[in-house]
Amino acid sequence: MDIEEFRKRGYETVDRICKYYQELENYEVLSKVEPGYLKKVLPKEVPEEPEPWEKIQSDIETKIIPGITHWQSPNFFAFYPANSSFPSILGDMYSDMFNVIGFNWASSPACTELESIVLDWMGKLIGLDPNFHSDGRGGGVIQGTASEATLVTLLAARYRMLEEYKAKGLDGEELRTISTRLIAYGSDQTHPCLNKATMIANTRFRALPTDNNFSLCGETVKQEIEKDIANGLIPFFIVGTIGTTNSAAIDKITDIVDAIKGTNIWLHIDAAYAGSALICSEYKYLLEGINQANSFDLNMHKGLLTNFDCSCLWIKERKYLINALSTASPDFLKNSASKDGLGLDFKDWQIPFGRRFRALKIWFVIRTYGAKGLREHIRKRHNLAKQFYNKILQYPDLFIIPLPSNFGLVNFYIKSSNSSKNSNKLTEMVYNRLNENGKVYLTQTKMRGQNMIRFAPGSPLTIERHINQICELLLNITQEVIAISL
Amino acid sequence: MDIEEFRKRGYETVDRICKYYQELENYEVLSKVEPGYLKKVLPKEVPEEPEPWEKIQSDIETKIIPGITHWQSPNFFAFYPANSSFPSILGDMYSDMFNVIGFNWASSPACTELESIVLDWMGKLIGLDPNFHSDGRGGGVIQGTASEATLVTLLAARYRMLEEYKAKGLDGEELRTISTRLIAYGSDQTHPCLNKATMIANTRFRALPTDNNFSLCGETVKQEIEKDIANGLIPFFIVGTIGTTNSAAIDKITDIVDAIKGTNIWLHIDAAYAGSALICSEYKYLLEGINQANSFDLNMHKGLLTNFDCSCLWIKERKYLINALSTASPDFLKNSASKDGLGLDFKDWQIPFGRRFRALKIWFVIRTYGAKGLREHIRKRHNLAKQFYNKILQYPDLFIIPLPSNFGLVNFYIKSSNSSKNSNKLTEMVYNRLNENGKVYLTQTKMRGQNMIRFAPGSPLTIERHINQICELLLNITQEVIAISL
Repeated sequence: MDIEEFRKRGYETVDRICKYYQELENYEVLSKVEPGYLKKVLPKEVPEEPEPWEKIQSDIETKIIPGITHWQSPNFFAFYPANSSFPSILGDMYSDMFNVIGFNWASSPACTELESIVLDWMGKLIGLDPNFHSDGRGGGVIQGTASEATLVTLLAARYRMLEEYKAKGLDGEELRTISTRLIAYGSDQTHPCLNKATMIANTRFRALPTDNNFSLCGETVKQEIEKDIANGLIPFFIVGTIGTTNSAAIDKITDIVDAIKGTNIWLHIDAAYAGSALICSEYKYLLEGINQANSFDLNMHKGLLTNFDCSCLWIKERKYLINALSTASPDFLKNSASKDGLGLDFKDWQIPFGRRFRALKIWFVIRTYGAKGLREHIRKRHNLAKQFYNKILQYPDLFIIPLPSNFGLVNFYIKSSNSSKNSNKLTEMVYNRLNENGKVYLTQTKMRGQNMIRFAPGSPLTIERHINQICELLLNITQEVIAISL
Repeated sequence: MDIEEFRKRGYETVDRICKYYQELENYEVLSKVEPGYLKKVLPKEVPEEPEPWEKIQSDIETKIIPGITHWQSPNFFAFYPANSSFPSILGDMYSDMFNVIGFNWASSPACTELESIVLDWMGKLIGLDPNFHSDGRGGGVIQGTASEATLVTLLAARYRMLEEYKAKGLDGEELRTISTRLIAYGSDQTHPCLNKATMIANTRFRALPTDNNFSLCGETVKQEIEKDIANGLIPFFIVGTIGTTNSAAIDKITDIVDAIKGTNIWLHIDAAYAGSALICSEYKYLLEGINQANSFDLNMHKGLLTNFDCSCLWIKERKYLINALSTASPDFLKNSASKDGLGLDFKDWQIPFGRRFRALKIWFVIRTYGAKGLREHIRKRHNLAKQFYNKILQYPDLFIIPLPSNFGLVNFYIKSSNSSKNSNKLTEMVYNRLNENGKVYLTQTKMRGQNMIRFAPGSPLTIERHINQICELLLNITQEVIAISL
């Protein structure tokens, strides 16, 4: 494919993207293919000869699109939203044009510097403590996902804790034994990435129980830590969540800060989904807890219109991260900027060495929307969720909303005049019919035995009309299900 | 930015990409900015109001491009090449259009299925043992980088080894103690990602010495393992490299296979750079060793014209990977395909949960070039390196090429009539002047005390003319340097 053919196919692809977003509303949101569908229609081997673009493009339409679950649809209310935007797509196009591998400063200074700058920008916009800023001993870095942010901060915390024992004079073998006693904590609502991080790092982990609102409380943390210390374990890391995946619950961060005061436990705040809301004044009250933590993470690919992947991690003392993750720089990577400590080498802030130029898409999105536009997007999403909430609240005989609705997530279930078991069955039936219908996509969860349907709008294309549609659909299906269950 | 503005800006961006590749040859390859350059010219905060695209676009030209080291330039001979292509850029555009988060099968079946299919295609094209194919107990998966492939296979190996002890009846606490005795091996030439993986996973690591060609030999492995076992350690993982980063050395894989026979040690082959060459018949002899390994990884983003990131990992027994990396699926991710085991859930094959639709770019590249075109690209690169090799071979008084030139990499240094210390100094001076010149970019390394300049062509834009240019430049600079050093 030469330059002129690329120009032609590039224009066509831009047009295809425009058409996709114009028609997106008409697609069935959830793909209905059966496992193995694609293998049946694709060749078994790499073609020996080049194939023309027309053939590839036509396969996208006939073979790929049927297998797509349309995350950008205005009728996608599943999981948590992960929405993109046009400036973000343009940012990726520029990133692909350069295709630099920004492992260290010298490998493309703009890649590292723009990342540090836009993370400082975002930190200020949120209102993070200046200690999270790159000017001092901290800084921000883009991770692929919140999972990686949790893993790398856990490793930084382990490094810091083992340093303490090293300072006491313990040698390598003794430190190995110490490391088998390290224990990390989250709540029974913390994202499973924490458990996964402890499996990877080979430390202990315990999920602590939450209160009636599914929040982790300081008192619980205090008790469990004391118990573990008495049993010879070494608590070193705790994750507090702002906006859990199940129900958008908020852990009691300031109480957790008090509970771990005087210890060497690292507090990481996972605000993967809800953190975006902190750009709005009405959520700034959450900063009191966040700003006492050691690290903080939010996914711009969840709430702030930036293509996946784009998880923003801030850390107060970058030295622990860097020490935990840097190996001696091999000779083939040595350069004067690294040697003099002038350039940031982000390879030492993350699991992989190589990295893409992801700061471009953040920069394009922030500037195209402005802080104002980003806040409007967050508030619009939350308002749409509130509309949904208020609508179903009008049918107390049909729907129960058992929890506060935070950050644009509404969890509800179907009321049963009989037992709660029946309520679970009804909720499951309504859930299945909603998604079989094809017009919308929602996901379910289970909380303390109770089936729930989750509703989380996020697409910039979603407007009041879509809320009215799903409410009507939900109402009809629920009434049908109750009628046949009687 | 509405659909019509995106269409306009999308076309412009396509044009910009065309212009970039048209003019790329004229850019200074290595960025000359000073650390901190960008901070001085960018605002300190997020703009409150939206900014027009023209302003963003103009900042790319004036502020970003000066800070880019041009990895796609025909005069980029540094590190190992990481080249893209137009169909790969189009693949990313489609991936960004859908912006699906393919953590499990149901979240977008096409994303998981196409990935499994194109990895099977590539495996067949290379000639991998059928046990690496997804039909049986194995399969392929895209990782971000070879670092992540090394880490996840190390975790699979640890899982497998601890299972053996579990089967002997050891409990959780005993397994913790066992895990402190686990040791992983590479050579003193293995990429530092292995050391990093052992730091993350908290296992021991030792770099074993290599022979005169910088290859790891079976005898060394055998001796070291026996010594460690005698000392109470538990060898569980070894990386054999095909094409080391320093000098493209090839470890003696079949001998290593013999050395670990009868043990439960997992052999992972890191062919991040050189693995691409296996699509050519002249490299198939390497398969004998590879096909006896437990896992194998190559970076399509290095040699096969696919945008970073795209590291392809094949594994013979996926159950170890999945068991090492899967947590109980939380309720919000449960779906019938996962429950019935019909759909692959790639979140359990990698560190993060979320993932992009990267198979599209592989699919586009493979089909646009055909197997034939990909082989031509590899051979053209290797031939260009051979031309360079042959040219500098004509000046035995100036240049020494101390090692076999594998896979399109040529390492050389400047000959000195005096001591080897002087040779190091001369090599350093030539290296600095080459890069200061701005027309080309190479990197250096140090091997057993000897400074070397690395030459690795990769851009599809590089043709014989560029080889002649760099040879002439190198010759002139070397003669100058020698003249002033006399």
